[in-house]
Amino acid sequence: MSQPTGACPHAWRHQQQHRGRMWATSRAFRRQLVLLRSLLPSPPSPPPYSFPSVAGRFFAPSCSSPSSTPSGSIRASHAMAGSAVYEADAEAVVRRITPPLDRSRHKGQAGKIAVIGGCREYTGAPYFAAISALKVGADLSHVFCTKDAATVIKSYSPELIVHPILEESYSVRDDERASVSSKILTEVAKWLERFDCIVVGPGLGRDSFLLDCVSNIMKHARQANIPTVVDGDGLFLITNNLGLVEGNPFAILTPNVYEYKRLVQKVLNCDVNEETAAEQLTLLCQKIGGVTIMRKGKADVISDGKTVTQVSTFGSPRRCGGQGDILSGSVAVFTSWARHFIMSNEEPKEKRVNPMTLGCIAGSLLLRKAASLAFEKSKRSTVTTDIIEFLGKSLEDICPAEH
Amino acid sequence: MSQPTGACPHAWRHQQQHRGRMWATSRAFRRQLVLLRSLLPSPPSPPPYSFPSVAGRFFAPSCSSPSSTPSGSIRASHAMAGSAVYEADAEAVVRRITPPLDRSRHKGQAGKIAVIGGCREYTGAPYFAAISALKVGADLSHVFCTKDAATVIKSYSPELIVHPILEESYSVRDDERASVSSKILTEVAKWLERFDCIVVGPGLGRDSFLLDCVSNIMKHARQANIPTVVDGDGLFLITNNLGLVEGNPFAILTPNVYEYKRLVQKVLNCDVNEETAAEQLTLLCQKIGGVTIMRKGKADVISDGKTVTQVSTFGSPRRCGGQGDILSGSVAVFTSWARHFIMSNEEPKEKRVNPMTLGCIAGSLLLRKAASLAFEKSKRSTVTTDIIEFLGKSLEDICPAEH
Repeated sequence: MSQPTGACPHAWRHQQQHRGRMWATSRAFRRQLVLLRSLLPSPPSPPPYSFPSVAGRFFAPSCSSPSSTPSGSIRASHAMAGSAVYEADAEAVVRRITPPLDRSRHKGQAGKIAVIGGCREYTGAPYFAAISALKVGADLSHVFCTKDAATVIKSYSPELIVHPILEESYSVRDDERASVSSKILTEVAKWLERFDCIVVGPGLGRDSFLLDCVSNIMKHARQANIPTVVDGDGLFLITNNLGLVEGNPFAILTPNVYEYKRLVQKVLNCDVNEETAAEQLTLLCQKIGGVTIMRKGKADVISDGKTVTQVSTFGSPRRCGGQGDILSGSVAVFTSWARHFIMSNEEPKEKRVNPMTLGCIAGSLLLRKAASLAFEKSKRSTVTTDIIEFLGKSLEDICPAEH
Repeated sequence: MSQPTGACPHAWRHQQQHRGRMWATSRAFRRQLVLLRSLLPSPPSPPPYSFPSVAGRFFAPSCSSPSSTPSGSIRASHAMAGSAVYEADAEAVVRRITPPLDRSRHKGQAGKIAVIGGCREYTGAPYFAAISALKVGADLSHVFCTKDAATVIKSYSPELIVHPILEESYSVRDDERASVSSKILTEVAKWLERFDCIVVGPGLGRDSFLLDCVSNIMKHARQANIPTVVDGDGLFLITNNLGLVEGNPFAILTPNVYEYKRLVQKVLNCDVNEETAAEQLTLLCQKIGGVTIMRKGKADVISDGKTVTQVSTFGSPRRCGGQGDILSGSVAVFTSWARHFIMSNEEPKEKRVNPMTLGCIAGSLLLRKAASLAFEKSKRSTVTTDIIEFLGKSLEDICPAEH
């Protein structure tokens, strides 16, 4: 979806913002927010983003009253005064959606995840995403990558199932492209429906032939309603081909500061505006048509075009590469758990909460907790592997396995 | 062996069940059960499966009387009331069959195991099976796999001897198939007789050429009377070609819930019936002609068509992929130890116990103990490697090396 040809960018933007406000004051939006808040029971903390002239109106009736939450009253009134980015009670979300470890369960029932990524150049990123999924608690974690990458990723860990299926331009003759592309899709497709969630992007690279193949895989996943987390080079792919995620409620985009900037420029045709950040994020989700976006930063801000929540628990001051990959793998597992939780939940209020949002909230918190513990131990020398080693303890601290 | 053409499935099934009952009430069956129970001295616990109208008859005379085992009287009378699945005293089995660590022994005397598996797609599974064999206590552990898999499996551990011998269809021209297949068999055959037990299946994949070669290897192993544990894709192979294991008393099949279902459908031409589960398992073993089957599940239920025992010690609620591979490698080692124990035992009663059953009981218990310890440490983030790390301690707890 692009801006209508010939339309004045300012007028168009104004129109979109107006639509966003209309939506934000609508009954459906109010209902979503009430539902989300009922699942996330803690009072909101002072929000970093303002959403002027919207929140005050519809939050007033549903916010905890000062008398019922005395300690939260200032925060509540602050929220009521004109902001709508609520700090998620992320620990409560993790506890609600994490499935009990039932003795009667079979292999696969706690989640089967696949990462589409890994090429001649990048092998660490898909490994980090896939192993994180296992460490969070998925039963099976697959990687679909190029042949060159497969040998290396396999050698990182025997725990992963690595499929050397993708191809890059350098290894395919022009006249073979169509048949190779079709063969790749057939190979991946026979696995795809087994997965509860896929992650597209970690270490994918930017080879045009490979990206074309991955576009086909994404279309297939979409037809099968498989939740799809898009990160890294997957965001490069979808930013240039928005049709791949447009109108897909099972798509989650997890852009960092640069990827978000490109996405905003491409979709909203303007620059990131920190003063109306929450509104802009909501508009972005709406414009792409119902996808969930987690804008990574000091706080991770999450919207599905209806609600805006954030996780701002402090993680680590270390910014070593690879943390985004942990996040994408963790979000994939939590999203599949949240989906199962929502589908099997008989409480009509909770049934309508967006599981993609819950998956993002839980994944964000877990990475932050693990990064904090890893930094405490390894300080400046903390690397991504150290953080992955603390995923288990972090989850255990929040949600003991005996629970 | 398939159902006779034209026979009514129900009549045929009834006939088989009748044969099963005939066998179950026969003198040979009674003798096997008495022998097994004499080796497994603890009183039976309440069984989860019923074996109606059979057990009561032949267990009455051989069960411990309430007066001789006062504390076990209720359980014994429960067993006598109509069930024949006995909880194995698996710790006693492990202690009896684990060989002492004699200083005069040479390399290889504690067991030489080989895993046939590992292809372009799977490398973790054969590694898990082979390294588990070493960690249980085998002296040498080999892997026979494809060239693509070999480099990766070698890189997981310098402890294994990895033979890059197998080939998949994509790497063999049609006109070369016969010669390549023959060359592969020659290569493997020159090693085969050195092994005390082989495991066929972990990470084998389903390539038709590779499976044809493995069929030849299985035939060769059978001629040499080498105990053969069949798991994973090996079960896919034998389910479609039952002749590979039919009538082989040295074959052990270790199906999970899905593999068992396919096996029952193929061999008994019906669905799994939980109400007559023990009877069905017995029939299945008989129909395949004397193989031992360990049906994996909440309890691992083991039959050789004569006795039905189970191990239900609780392991771990984590169902991460790879635990079946640990089991197959462990069963291989314990089976070779049990065979040696039975062969060198001069007690005629014990001489007739099936070492395949003992190997399954011991392997099942050890995996469950190790999984339990690993889960205690790593909780939800437990992966297969964590469990393997506890195989040694688990065995030591049951059967100290100084003993």
